[in-house]
Amino acid sequence: MHEELKQAVCNANIELQTHKLVIYSWGNVSGIDRQAGVIAIKPSGVAYDELTPDKMVLLDLDGKVIEGELSPSSDTPTHLELYQNFKAIGGVCHTHSSNATMWAQACREIPCFGTTHADYYYGAVPVTDVMIPAEIQSDYELNTGKVIVRRFAQLNPLQMPAVLVANHGPFTWGKTPAGSVESAVVLEQVAAMAMGTLRVNDSQEGISQVLLDKHYLRKHGDNAYYGQK
Amino acid sequence: MHEELKQAVCNANIELQTHKLVIYSWGNVSGIDRQAGVIAIKPSGVAYDELTPDKMVLLDLDGKVIEGELSPSSDTPTHLELYQNFKAIGGVCHTHSSNATMWAQACREIPCFGTTHADYYYGAVPVTDVMIPAEIQSDYELNTGKVIVRRFAQLNPLQMPAVLVANHGPFTWGKTPAGSVESAVVLEQVAAMAMGTLRVNDSQEGISQVLLDKHYLRKHGDNAYYGQK
Amino acid sequence: MHEELKQAVCNANIELQTHKLVIYSWGNVSGIDRQAGVIAIKPSGVAYDELTPDKMVLLDLDGKVIEGELSPSSDTPTHLELYQNFKAIGGVCHTHSSNATMWAQACREIPCFGTTHADYYYGAVPVTDVMIPAEIQSDYELNTGKVIVRRFAQLNPLQMPAVLVANHGPFTWGKTPAGSVESAVVLEQVAAMAMGTLRVNDSQEGISQVLLDKHYLRKHGDNAYYGQK
Amino acid sequence: MHEELKQAVCNANIELQTHKLVIYSWGNVSGIDRQAGVIAIKPSGVAYDELTPDKMVLLDLDGKVIEGELSPSSDTPTHLELYQNFKAIGGVCHTHSSNATMWAQACREIPCFGTTHADYYYGAVPVTDVMIPAEIQSDYELNTGKVIVRRFAQLNPLQMPAVLVANHGPFTWGKTPAGSVESAVVLEQVAAMAMGTLRVNDSQEGISQVLLDKHYLRKHGDNAYYGQK
Repeated sequence: MHEELKQAVCNANIELQTHKLVIYSWGNVSGIDRQAGVIAIKPSGVAYDELTPDKMVLLDLDGKVIEGELSPSSDTPTHLELYQNFKAIGGVCHTHSSNATMWAQACREIPCFGTTHADYYYGAVPVTDVMIPAEIQSDYELNTGKVIVRRFAQLNPLQMPAVLVANHGPFTWGKTPAGSVESAVVLEQVAAMAMGTLRVNDSQEGISQVLLDKHYLRKHGDNAYYGQK
Repeated sequence: MHEELKQAVCNANIELQTHKLVIYSWGNVSGIDRQAGVIAIKPSGVAYDELTPDKMVLLDLDGKVIEGELSPSSDTPTHLELYQNFKAIGGVCHTHSSNATMWAQACREIPCFGTTHADYYYGAVPVTDVMIPAEIQSDYELNTGKVIVRRFAQLNPLQMPAVLVANHGPFTWGKTPAGSVESAVVLEQVAAMAMGTLRVNDSQEGISQVLLDKHYLRKHGDNAYYGQK
Repeated sequence: MHEELKQAVCNANIELQTHKLVIYSWGNVSGIDRQAGVIAIKPSGVAYDELTPDKMVLLDLDGKVIEGELSPSSDTPTHLELYQNFKAIGGVCHTHSSNATMWAQACREIPCFGTTHADYYYGAVPVTDVMIPAEIQSDYELNTGKVIVRRFAQLNPLQMPAVLVANHGPFTWGKTPAGSVESAVVLEQVAAMAMGTLRVNDSQEGISQVLLDKHYLRKHGDNAYYGQK
Repeated sequence: MHEELKQAVCNANIELQTHKLVIYSWGNVSGIDRQAGVIAIKPSGVAYDELTPDKMVLLDLDGKVIEGELSPSSDTPTHLELYQNFKAIGGVCHTHSSNATMWAQACREIPCFGTTHADYYYGAVPVTDVMIPAEIQSDYELNTGKVIVRRFAQLNPLQMPAVLVANHGPFTWGKTPAGSVESAVVLEQVAAMAMGTLRVNDSQEGISQVLLDKHYLRKHGDNAYYGQK
């Protein structure tokens, strides 16, 4: 059952390795079938080369395993929290990709320094609060989801499909599992470029709202005119 | 019709991926047949792996589509503006290649720090003005071309086949589509080296005019003596 | 004899090249059979492409060659000193991998800036003292082992399977030869991320003890819950 | 004639591309048969993929072409000057490899920050004087050789098989053409590590003479004990 979902989630996980966002088993992707209320996610600690659709773990929105013999990713409670709160998303991706993780470890949001960034993210990529001891000591992975959701109180997840968890690394999402990986790839590139921008000019500021609007809305929403109709 | 032009433009677009200057569909190359007044350009938002000569879009210099079923690159008006003003060029290339984009985002020209740079660019690689709201809000892509042309009031496009659009990224050109891609490859290398140069010595200044003349003119113009006759 | 050990050590040495931790013959891995008191190590100065299990050199814990026609790695006395003092380890790896070597050359420990680091190393990755002339002039490789062991007086080698030898580069270890290489791969990644973290925020401090405990103990020890049971 | 020399020089040039030290035709290697007084060098501006032994150009020590239909590298006079003054060398290599070029463009010698460097170079890698206008305007390539030789007045070329030409890039050499390329590969790595070392600790100083002696002499000279006998 849910073969299409398992296939899509399996493929998206394998793409993490293709795009060099992960080594060993340092990342995971999940996807959701909203109508069925079913989530598929990577099994914990399994190498990407060994992934097949039937190894994906199926869960309901409360985290109860519906199908699969392997344990789900240890980050599963974070994914669930995101699906429960960001109703429009269909895939979630977590990696420790190098450049995005540097910003996350530095606890600093990524300013929007150019149009590459503005084509995908409608503003600076936010960083969460540093988690407090109580949030870490129990229900850590669930609370990781909660600090993300808290940070998005004023943000639209589809206009900002990425976050940096402070001291940790990026979570990204999209309408599909593949879309969440695309956001992870772009974030890695944007993070690298932002670091280089500061190296060339350490007082550089973000682009204007006008340019941000132009590029973001050129590709997204009703008036988009990029790509084929 | 114009098979040779479409083939050359298709190949040049594919080279963007070979040289790792692009991911997804983040760049485009065009070429012009000056005699026929015909421009071929990449279709918008199509992956490089799927490009074939017959997918190239043919336009006249006013941007009217002559042949092709796909929409042309959304950057087409920028390309047209460059062809109309830089009469000696035969190919235009736009990418968001990492190192060149870092300088563009930092709104800083790339000083000529060495002979690698001087072999291709006759001086610092210029950066355009930051575009004002009115230039962004309407005819954005056309105005992108106009700020480039304005920046070249005192520059010879064939001696400086590259520019950094502020807050955005590089445009490069050459006598042919392939030549415009070669300039994009070299610019990426030169941008990386310039950044490293400043990291080693943050008060380093550009090379002397004498050394610039020597290297540039060793490879270009009537007295060139590099390569085979 | 000891075919399994020689095979494991040969494979682990070849992995150094696969993971791009070495060029030429800039690294070596050894393994130990504690019960037999036998160590297998890479021969000195031999290219990874030419390695076969029968070229591994077998030694006892005093460094006496038991089997093999080639000279053992010139770093052998360092490996022996580690096996003699760190009783729980089964493999040792030495490389000059770029990012870890940068920190070693800078004589600076790698702070634990995030959970990627905390998943593998229970605290900052330590750097040894700079060796004094007497330690360098005679028994240099043995003394390299001694300064490492000295640095670990208060540290548990299995909780901190890596060290930076000042002015030199990393040594890593693990329960097996393959495990020592995994630590070398992770260290290289962690070193790169730490450098980038400081570039983004040069006053960034290490993560809290609570977060370090959470991540390290999530993967290691009796209460680990990462991966498959 | 001189088939062996042409083969060795051709192979060494192709290795520049294999080791990613060059793009386009940005580097060249030569070799000398001291007994015959014959030098083989890459033809100017020819792509590495198209090189075959019979395309190598043969010259005498005065630069007179003995064999070959193509023009020799435009850097030939630099190579000749090095062969005439450094009597023990058998191969010369010139590239614009990224990291070494950054130091050359910054006009800064590469301090010996660690044992990786000390294994190959007996001290800081020197940088030449900036060439004066008269040296650039006539006999530029010959004068490039002369500023290198001048810089080596107090240095032994076999103990320091590399130099940075200010504002330009590295020249390396060795006992053979292949040896000159190995030095170019190592220099690139050493240059990258030195830059990273300064990023981690910007007041880091070079290693002690004792450690330099230990590592350099462990691999070179009568008392070397690295590798197989």
